[in-house]
Amino acid sequence: MPEKHNMPEGAIPCLDKGFVRLVDSMGGDEAIVQAARVSYGKGTSKVSQDRGLIRYLMRHRHTTPFEMVEFKFHAKMPIFVARQWVRHRTANINEYSLRYSEARDEFYYPDPEHIQFQSALNKQGRAGKVPKKLTDKVMKYFREISERSFEMYQELNDAGLAKELIRAILPVNLYTEWYWKNDLHNLLHFIGLRSDLHAQYEIRVYSDAMAESVKKVAPFAWEAYQDYVVDGMRFSRAEQNLLETRLPERVIDDIVEDVAYQITATLHNNKPRKDGELYELYQKQGGSDVESDFQLKWDSGEIELGNVRELKEFREKLTKMKK
Amino acid sequence: MPEKHNMPEGAIPCLDKGFVRLVDSMGGDEAIVQAARVSYGKGTSKVSQDRGLIRYLMRHRHTTPFEMVEFKFHAKMPIFVARQWVRHRTANINEYSLRYSEARDEFYYPDPEHIQFQSALNKQGRAGKVPKKLTDKVMKYFREISERSFEMYQELNDAGLAKELIRAILPVNLYTEWYWKNDLHNLLHFIGLRSDLHAQYEIRVYSDAMAESVKKVAPFAWEAYQDYVVDGMRFSRAEQNLLETRLPERVIDDIVEDVAYQITATLHNNKPRKDGELYELYQKQGGSDVESDFQLKWDSGEIELGNVRELKEFREKLTKMKK
Amino acid sequence: MPEKHNMPEGAIPCLDKGFVRLVDSMGGDEAIVQAARVSYGKGTSKVSQDRGLIRYLMRHRHTTPFEMVEFKFHAKMPIFVARQWVRHRTANINEYSLRYSEARDEFYYPDPEHIQFQSALNKQGRAGKVPKKLTDKVMKYFREISERSFEMYQELNDAGLAKELIRAILPVNLYTEWYWKNDLHNLLHFIGLRSDLHAQYEIRVYSDAMAESVKKVAPFAWEAYQDYVVDGMRFSRAEQNLLETRLPERVIDDIVEDVAYQITATLHNNKPRKDGELYELYQKQGGSDVESDFQLKWDSGEIELGNVRELKEFREKLTKMKK
Amino acid sequence: MPEKHNMPEGAIPCLDKGFVRLVDSMGGDEAIVQAARVSYGKGTSKVSQDRGLIRYLMRHRHTTPFEMVEFKFHAKMPIFVARQWVRHRTANINEYSLRYSEARDEFYYPDPEHIQFQSALNKQGRAGKVPKKLTDKVMKYFREISERSFEMYQELNDAGLAKELIRAILPVNLYTEWYWKNDLHNLLHFIGLRSDLHAQYEIRVYSDAMAESVKKVAPFAWEAYQDYVVDGMRFSRAEQNLLETRLPERVIDDIVEDVAYQITATLHNNKPRKDGELYELYQKQGGSDVESDFQLKWDSGEIELGNVRELKEFREKLTKMKK
Repeated sequence: MPEKHNMPEGAIPCLDKGFVRLVDSMGGDEAIVQAARVSYGKGTSKVSQDRGLIRYLMRHRHTTPFEMVEFKFHAKMPIFVARQWVRHRTANINEYSLRYSEARDEFYYPDPEHIQFQSALNKQGRAGKVPKKLTDKVMKYFREISERSFEMYQELNDAGLAKELIRAILPVNLYTEWYWKNDLHNLLHFIGLRSDLHAQYEIRVYSDAMAESVKKVAPFAWEAYQDYVVDGMRFSRAEQNLLETRLPERVIDDIVEDVAYQITATLHNNKPRKDGELYELYQKQGGSDVESDFQLKWDSGEIELGNVRELKEFREKLTKMKK
Repeated sequence: MPEKHNMPEGAIPCLDKGFVRLVDSMGGDEAIVQAARVSYGKGTSKVSQDRGLIRYLMRHRHTTPFEMVEFKFHAKMPIFVARQWVRHRTANINEYSLRYSEARDEFYYPDPEHIQFQSALNKQGRAGKVPKKLTDKVMKYFREISERSFEMYQELNDAGLAKELIRAILPVNLYTEWYWKNDLHNLLHFIGLRSDLHAQYEIRVYSDAMAESVKKVAPFAWEAYQDYVVDGMRFSRAEQNLLETRLPERVIDDIVEDVAYQITATLHNNKPRKDGELYELYQKQGGSDVESDFQLKWDSGEIELGNVRELKEFREKLTKMKK
Repeated sequence: MPEKHNMPEGAIPCLDKGFVRLVDSMGGDEAIVQAARVSYGKGTSKVSQDRGLIRYLMRHRHTTPFEMVEFKFHAKMPIFVARQWVRHRTANINEYSLRYSEARDEFYYPDPEHIQFQSALNKQGRAGKVPKKLTDKVMKYFREISERSFEMYQELNDAGLAKELIRAILPVNLYTEWYWKNDLHNLLHFIGLRSDLHAQYEIRVYSDAMAESVKKVAPFAWEAYQDYVVDGMRFSRAEQNLLETRLPERVIDDIVEDVAYQITATLHNNKPRKDGELYELYQKQGGSDVESDFQLKWDSGEIELGNVRELKEFREKLTKMKK
Repeated sequence: MPEKHNMPEGAIPCLDKGFVRLVDSMGGDEAIVQAARVSYGKGTSKVSQDRGLIRYLMRHRHTTPFEMVEFKFHAKMPIFVARQWVRHRTANINEYSLRYSEARDEFYYPDPEHIQFQSALNKQGRAGKVPKKLTDKVMKYFREISERSFEMYQELNDAGLAKELIRAILPVNLYTEWYWKNDLHNLLHFIGLRSDLHAQYEIRVYSDAMAESVKKVAPFAWEAYQDYVVDGMRFSRAEQNLLETRLPERVIDDIVEDVAYQITATLHNNKPRKDGELYELYQKQGGSDVESDFQLKWDSGEIELGNVRELKEFREKLTKMKK
């Protein structure tokens, strides 16, 4: 656990001595909507419409309105984490400099549970449980190299040697810190990559901590990013071919039916219709059950609500798969 | 048709008076591979391996190696096309300046077939056939405003007025030109957006012309981009839910079977096995047909080849859909 | 004058119908200091130290802390102005789209005083006074082409033609609008270029309007940018050679004297010294007047205060010029 | 000295085991000129005009044409050098990954002459000569920590532990390598900062090595960058005030005289004039010597040639200083 007394107020602890802290932000969901609506010059809108618009923008990869929201974090992390992090080039960074300032005796020591074997399947992953004896050795080595190198560093620093040179003997588990500023579009991309299961555990912790801030500052954007990008599934042309060959038309028809029910229910929910109008509305949406079946299903209360535009787009995709 | 005598050598004509010309490029498929392999320090590799690596990189969105290839184009297009184009901010641009230089009497006049109605469905699209009378009027107006404004411009220019001011009366169908340089990753993204059917026809023509250069300079990268990004299909969380509910397990099992056959055939193709080893290999890949059925299908010659790594990843995705 | 009823609250009118409005900002001088001080981990500081630090950062082109401040503007301007503006690629932009939305009848008509001749000296400038008859003609032409093209546009739009196509006949003096977001470092660079006398008048108006916001949000950064970049003077190697050949050593010595006095006065001002210590302090700063002369000058009250670090750096530059 | 057998062909050795190698480049001086001339549509030009144009562009900070030239380097350097380098965000990078690949036993050991004390004046610099005893200790510590940490790394790697984790004990003097691609404008900016005397010695070596490639690929651009940016001198508003107060008008007049002679000689050199025309030409350039003095000086053969446009701009700056 990070030592609390060293942490700025409001910081989320990360790893054993690090943290992430939201320093400032500009805009939120409403700023995305404002930017997207510059085309219409229209005034305020209902929150429900805002959510729909944000989901539409995300679904269609209209990314520029998400760039209108800005986040600034203060973070402290081991150098090897900072080295991955810095590869996101749209961010603005000010980092603690070991040319100017003295190194501090703060090194990352992994918890035993995160000391794992090299994954055989995933060239950049970890797998399996390590025997305690080996775990202990890893921890011993981390401690030994950190302490020994810092001792040397201090001795050479006390002897007056140039800081920029002697820092070269410090290992990459040394903690550094920085201010890091980025816009929401690029921050979501960062989180998408770094909170992924394939990312290294030590950076994932920071990515997950920043995700908490995004959820609070721009909840609709966060939700849409999860639904369309993170939890989305993507099929290549070859995969589609295999899928389409095997997928019975009937299955697609069944899904199109489900979609027709969901659209009808959603439209009715947005603007209630008279009982007599519902079946016709359902037919217009491509539903093909007879009226009595429709009534049965309708009364079952099992029809979920969705987003009308999204459902229509899905229907289009499905229809393409039939040919 | 663009007037040929005004076009630089090797230029591809675009619209009535424009063009795109590849001025220079740096690297190609081999530069992508070289950059991706910096991790291994290994020497030359077979072309077939290069293709596999490039497809792997594209499939997993490892985009940085694609940034190692650079393209420079010389292009001439109407101002309203340039205004969309310039929004791709990673490019380097040098444009003809109407502050320094005199405007030239070159305006875009659409072909009758591209004069269409506003689409009712798609707020930013065209649809339907326009009666000749109306088409003629559009063409007349384009000509009238272009000629009249240029006449005025020339008169004011001859009177010695400041170019930077009087150019303000020229319409956005005036042709401009520029040098435009970008890396392959960002160029593919441009083409993905601007060669899409939702892009405006007038910019699509230029995007398609640049695509020709990409195909020649980096054919494997081009192919992979088509297969995984352009022709890929993406399902949101909600869509997956609907799909999974309706998709019979049997269908998924069938596809997994197809995949097992394709992997076996591909492995055999890469490194021929003895007859006796094939069935075992197929079983290892998750195949569950009995040996006689396997033999029958194998002998049919209908099994397609694929990419082993891609097929295995697809199998994983399918398995997830079953739960 | 822009019509006030069309303008958002707090907007600064620009040209005849445009405006610039600061929508939001993140951070100010204190955010620059905070980012620069991450190296020291020190707490709060006095305002006077903040100013000194900001000036130091600007003088030495340490630009990253200035990137920690963010501005978002809403602006409305003619297309030909937007075309220059958009070339600043670090900004995030959402613009009114004529593919989605109808064009509005708003065109830029220059004031007579800004209708000038093409400068003979400056290929991209204006010069001289234009006779009223010619000015009238320019204004007539602006009006004619704007009105005629808009009439045509409306007629074709009413006939249902595709918006994305028919907008191509509208001239570049048509007003567009956007949200534009950028960090302080890049915004200062924008203002440096676009508020310069060589910039086109029509964009200078917008740049000057944004400068007002910078002055309020980050006054020290603004002041430092003026002093070191905008009002700085730069000599090339060849110019230095000419300067050094002709500059009598005595002149340089005189300036070094001035500098010694200013440093002494500034140090004394920061931390008052006893009378007896002043002459010694002055000598340490390279002063070579005898004590009585020193006293005379000191008592004159004519010695200006400056920034100690800056003055010392200047002394170094001067010394180099002597050799 | 770097071990030659480990170095790619054509690489420039840097530090004890590193190198920089130009892998590829696109364009050179002629590409800058081509991009800048898009405004004129004119054909080929004389080399002497190219040089003048490039110098003009550099002098006036017209940076976009320099972005049209691209460089790609392969480099190997210690991690602490890579950490400074990576802060230049416009570059494209592919780096050796210690998540995928095994670390190699290559560490930077400084030469004794580069082991120096911390500068008292310059918080980020080195100064002074270190006694041999202390130098030896530094070298011993570099070796000890490098060897010990690599021994541990190998032992843990042999035990099958995850590479991405155990690399965390390796010090930042470990060598890494990458492909690095950037355009000329940003590369010059990099070299301007990193070949400066205030840059850390260990990165300066790499910057200087890359400068060799720039000199060969774009010699005019390189020369102009040196003359106007690197060797330029800049005065702030406060410094100008001090300078102007003390600078006798007579000195400025003398320099203006020099400038008049140089312009005349340069014009004459470009297009020889008849003897009778020279004095008049000189007068037009602001020269005020009587004809006999002019003749004397002219015949002395001491008048240097320069660039006419640059000299005229200098005269303008000087004139401003008189007021």
